[in-house]
Amino acid sequence: MAPVAHVLFNRFMRFNPKNPKWLNRDRFVLSNGHGCMLQYALLHLYGYALSMDDIKAFRHIDSITPGHPEAHDTPGVEVTTGPLGQGISNAVGLAIAQAHTAAVFNKPGFDLVNNYTYCFLGDGCLMEGVSSEACSLAGHLQLGNLIAIYDDNHISIDGDTNQAFTEDVLKRYESYGWQVLVVEDGDHDLEGIEAAIKKAQETKDKPTLIKLRTTIGFGSKQQGTHGVHGSPLKADDIKQLKEKFGFNPEQSFVVPQQVYDHCHKKAAEGAALEEQWNKLLAQYAEKYKAEYDDLVRRLKGELPQGWEKALPVYTPSDAAVASRKLSEIVLTKIHAVLPELLGGSADLTGSNLTRWKDAVDFQPPSTGLGDYTGRYIRYGVREHGMGAIMNGLAAYGTIIPYGGTFLNFVSYAAGAVRLSSLSRVRTIWVATHDSIGLGEDGPTHQPIETLAHFRALPNMMVWRPADGNETSAAYYVALTSKHTPSILALSRQNLPQLEGSTIDKAIKGGYVLHEQPGADITLVSTGSEVCICIDAVKELKEKHNVKARVVSIPCFEVFDLQSKEYRLSVLPDGIPSLSVEVMSTMGWERYTHEQFGLNRFGASGAYKDVYKKFEFTPEGVAKRALATIDFWKDVPNIRSPINRAFQQII
Amino acid sequence: MAPVAHVLFNRFMRFNPKNPKWLNRDRFVLSNGHGCMLQYALLHLYGYALSMDDIKAFRHIDSITPGHPEAHDTPGVEVTTGPLGQGISNAVGLAIAQAHTAAVFNKPGFDLVNNYTYCFLGDGCLMEGVSSEACSLAGHLQLGNLIAIYDDNHISIDGDTNQAFTEDVLKRYESYGWQVLVVEDGDHDLEGIEAAIKKAQETKDKPTLIKLRTTIGFGSKQQGTHGVHGSPLKADDIKQLKEKFGFNPEQSFVVPQQVYDHCHKKAAEGAALEEQWNKLLAQYAEKYKAEYDDLVRRLKGELPQGWEKALPVYTPSDAAVASRKLSEIVLTKIHAVLPELLGGSADLTGSNLTRWKDAVDFQPPSTGLGDYTGRYIRYGVREHGMGAIMNGLAAYGTIIPYGGTFLNFVSYAAGAVRLSSLSRVRTIWVATHDSIGLGEDGPTHQPIETLAHFRALPNMMVWRPADGNETSAAYYVALTSKHTPSILALSRQNLPQLEGSTIDKAIKGGYVLHEQPGADITLVSTGSEVCICIDAVKELKEKHNVKARVVSIPCFEVFDLQSKEYRLSVLPDGIPSLSVEVMSTMGWERYTHEQFGLNRFGASGAYKDVYKKFEFTPEGVAKRALATIDFWKDVPNIRSPINRAFQQII
Repeated sequence: MAPVAHVLFNRFMRFNPKNPKWLNRDRFVLSNGHGCMLQYALLHLYGYALSMDDIKAFRHIDSITPGHPEAHDTPGVEVTTGPLGQGISNAVGLAIAQAHTAAVFNKPGFDLVNNYTYCFLGDGCLMEGVSSEACSLAGHLQLGNLIAIYDDNHISIDGDTNQAFTEDVLKRYESYGWQVLVVEDGDHDLEGIEAAIKKAQETKDKPTLIKLRTTIGFGSKQQGTHGVHGSPLKADDIKQLKEKFGFNPEQSFVVPQQVYDHCHKKAAEGAALEEQWNKLLAQYAEKYKAEYDDLVRRLKGELPQGWEKALPVYTPSDAAVASRKLSEIVLTKIHAVLPELLGGSADLTGSNLTRWKDAVDFQPPSTGLGDYTGRYIRYGVREHGMGAIMNGLAAYGTIIPYGGTFLNFVSYAAGAVRLSSLSRVRTIWVATHDSIGLGEDGPTHQPIETLAHFRALPNMMVWRPADGNETSAAYYVALTSKHTPSILALSRQNLPQLEGSTIDKAIKGGYVLHEQPGADITLVSTGSEVCICIDAVKELKEKHNVKARVVSIPCFEVFDLQSKEYRLSVLPDGIPSLSVEVMSTMGWERYTHEQFGLNRFGASGAYKDVYKKFEFTPEGVAKRALATIDFWKDVPNIRSPINRAFQQII
Repeated sequence: MAPVAHVLFNRFMRFNPKNPKWLNRDRFVLSNGHGCMLQYALLHLYGYALSMDDIKAFRHIDSITPGHPEAHDTPGVEVTTGPLGQGISNAVGLAIAQAHTAAVFNKPGFDLVNNYTYCFLGDGCLMEGVSSEACSLAGHLQLGNLIAIYDDNHISIDGDTNQAFTEDVLKRYESYGWQVLVVEDGDHDLEGIEAAIKKAQETKDKPTLIKLRTTIGFGSKQQGTHGVHGSPLKADDIKQLKEKFGFNPEQSFVVPQQVYDHCHKKAAEGAALEEQWNKLLAQYAEKYKAEYDDLVRRLKGELPQGWEKALPVYTPSDAAVASRKLSEIVLTKIHAVLPELLGGSADLTGSNLTRWKDAVDFQPPSTGLGDYTGRYIRYGVREHGMGAIMNGLAAYGTIIPYGGTFLNFVSYAAGAVRLSSLSRVRTIWVATHDSIGLGEDGPTHQPIETLAHFRALPNMMVWRPADGNETSAAYYVALTSKHTPSILALSRQNLPQLEGSTIDKAIKGGYVLHEQPGADITLVSTGSEVCICIDAVKELKEKHNVKARVVSIPCFEVFDLQSKEYRLSVLPDGIPSLSVEVMSTMGWERYTHEQFGLNRFGASGAYKDVYKKFEFTPEGVAKRALATIDFWKDVPNIRSPINRAFQQII
């Protein structure tokens, strides 16, 4: 891929290595991330902050040149790639972000945002379903500034692609509505590559896939075989390779000065381009003050002063409402003050309640269904694609993306979700129908393992709010956490507004909802089970003369970040505790002595029947609370599970 | 879809409602599982064990007619569907299984296995990436007996498909190598439907997609709109609908006797077909005794007597070997005695070590790369497709499928994995490169949350063997568990053969590897960290005069099934315990007082450097062991975490 990388970087890409965050830079994504030495070499040659020592430290511990590109580690890397299919899907997100940002901010005479998104991808990326989802949507959305270059080398790790991948890729991409172009000799035909990229740039209403016929390991004795896919070349092969390309075979890590000069000249042109652009921006600032201020603010990742006043606040006398509906109310209130919010759903809009009234859809104007200023994306039934696209949207710099699906189907997007966490982007999943409480759809749709899964993921905030104030708190923390993605698990069924909940308390991740001096037990819960615990308090008091306090932990991750002192005040020594949550108990042992959960699949039926079947009722909770108290009564001064020898949260 | 369902069931499908498990029945898969009332109605009409009362209990608690079809619940349902894209991908697995079983067992004059696999699917299934993966492979594999019928109604939940799904589906399926056919009026044109299915049957070297232009909610006042997608019809609409189709609008749940008669006649023909087939089978039994015995055994899901003798046994003097390599040795030993094993890898064969030497690939003979008797599937880079295909393979009845990828990328297939668990099929994931121990590939490939995720999934056995005997034990339990899938997490790096491990002990899921009278602490670990704990025992003894015992828990799920007495003998009261595992600590609190793990992402580098960076060394373990002992020293008779008021494992 070196020839096309050279043509692309030297003849097309607009970038300033001294400011890798310049808004209008062209984006480059290496979807086949295992080839990252190519990307590191480019960054080095063009003068990004990546030295020859960094190159030498390739795949060594604590280097900025890890085995696959990581955006937060390496200046000039736009998105974190390697898990196949993600990069090209991120690129779709970057291209959507560009089209949207241009539609919102560009003005006559101010073509502020017009960058291209380029992406290299290989056979593996094309085989992965996530790329099929994202690329089908990209075709529908007519993303003309997206240009993907397919390294068609006929080799994957197992050998020749004829073993498993004989589809007609070009025809498939045509079926998606892409322009497809071919360069027959990607090893030598630099002019052909240039012509293809030019044609791609000129086609404004379609993304383009350029198929480049290449030879893997070009120049090696093993060229064209899978022997060069993942293993280093042998010494004698490296030697002949260097000789073939005119290098001294005895030397390593040598870049001829004329190569540096050539690249740095291009880099200087890029710096000049940005300077010119900054002048344009200064004029824009004068003419379009409000837009300018908004753009600058968004680029900093900061929210407008006082935005949080738009968050709704509830009192116990307010009506019982499903938390998915509470989420809709939040979105309805905040979308006007947070123009960077770009939402959507994987074809469950009416169930996820992710679309505020009168939202404009993000659609190509020619469809008559919306335009590129639109802030609501119809993702189709494409959860994994949506997740990867959100990562690209967030990486662009001007957008905070959220996307809706059922909590159970966030798992379809697990590959993208973990990259949100790893690459530290602010994405928000509006994950409704969060438990057996969804009722009739049954076990195929009822999450059991899902919260444990995502709670175990580092740098991921999983929220399960119990009422309106907790829902507002979840949005508050999710939106103000610049470098952490969130999943908001929301109920289908109605939940009462709780006595004792406030936004301020809930943003600590866990708090005492119902205090009780001299309590015999602490009931600890989340989401739709908190109100059941509140009813269980009455049951315990009236029928058993037992005093219970109730703790709500809407977000483990945020609660874990509080001081030990605070956490021990919530879950103190001396009182046995019981967790209540209608899904896998895994992870609850960190907070409570006993767990009441569901370590089996659910059932299809009216949600109240399903809760009853599994005894998630005030009586069922009380029964287990009594068993807990009884079991722990002979342990004096029982220690809180919070109380540990050492903590390994991050 | 009623018209095509009628044509298919009445004019084509071969089945015997009295024996829904007849091997050579045609398979029917409802990939758009939310339409399951259609399937339940068909099963009822044709005389499966599904009564009118069952129909009336649709979506009611504890019925056999849940909100989406569940194979283990309902006779006649082949696979569990509803999560979109899964059913069509299962169908690809069923079709592979048919082709393979036919190739292995059919003989001249004995066309024992020649069934078709029919699948209904909708727009949602087509948008999901998992179906793209599976269908691309199905085209490559030239699965002529697979016939998919696409309900092209232009409506998804969000509204018209023109909002998000405007690709040319037929062109895409042609690009995969499928035959594509169209029926323009799927609401009325029964003859057109019949002709299309006939043509599909006649095409032997390609799967077929029949696009049926239909009207959603046909006959309703709301027909052709998304109003009829998920919501029940209004009373007056139902009334006019019944009238339109000649029913008494005042009556419900009425089937005219002539309809039953018509359907039962077809059912009787099916019973006769099976009888005829059974005669053929009896002749086959005489002529091909060995094959017959093998087939019958496989259909029972039982393994051959004494097969387990093929499992390798190790002693501490045997060489240190990576557990992925130990897995390869198992597969090499057992493939000859277990002909039902059908393996593969998502393009990581050389890394997963999933292919025994001289394996024949499952390939269309025309490719020259193998044939349908082949037992090794080249899945391509398609983890989710592989997972769903394995579910179909397992559901067919003659095959035990296993598939390889990196542990981290089993997450790509999470949607299919949870359906393995829910539908209780025996699938085995050979999940190598199971931790930061994979080294250089870095955080994008290093699992942190993955074990917690799948350990939280009900009816899933997650194994992480520490050496050769534990690897044999993992395979033993995985292969003998008819109704439970397994994930085998295997190391890239070498592991020593441990003193004290045996297959018999390890099949209990957890056991004392190293006993120590008067121990100060129990170290509890899995996989590649067990040998570090063994070294830590020495370190603790020699430098700190501390006595430590070591417990290995290769499989939480299986250990949890042992008696409390046994579990307490492994993790007794009175001794503080520390878990050691290089990934999320979530879930370990169930077994140990303190946890040493990795609740952050890993790093790219040589694996020993990565282990050292995070202190997973004998010294690092010893340090935390000392902290544990110190912290718990003032708690007399410390209780084992196993000791709980109640257990909620299943």
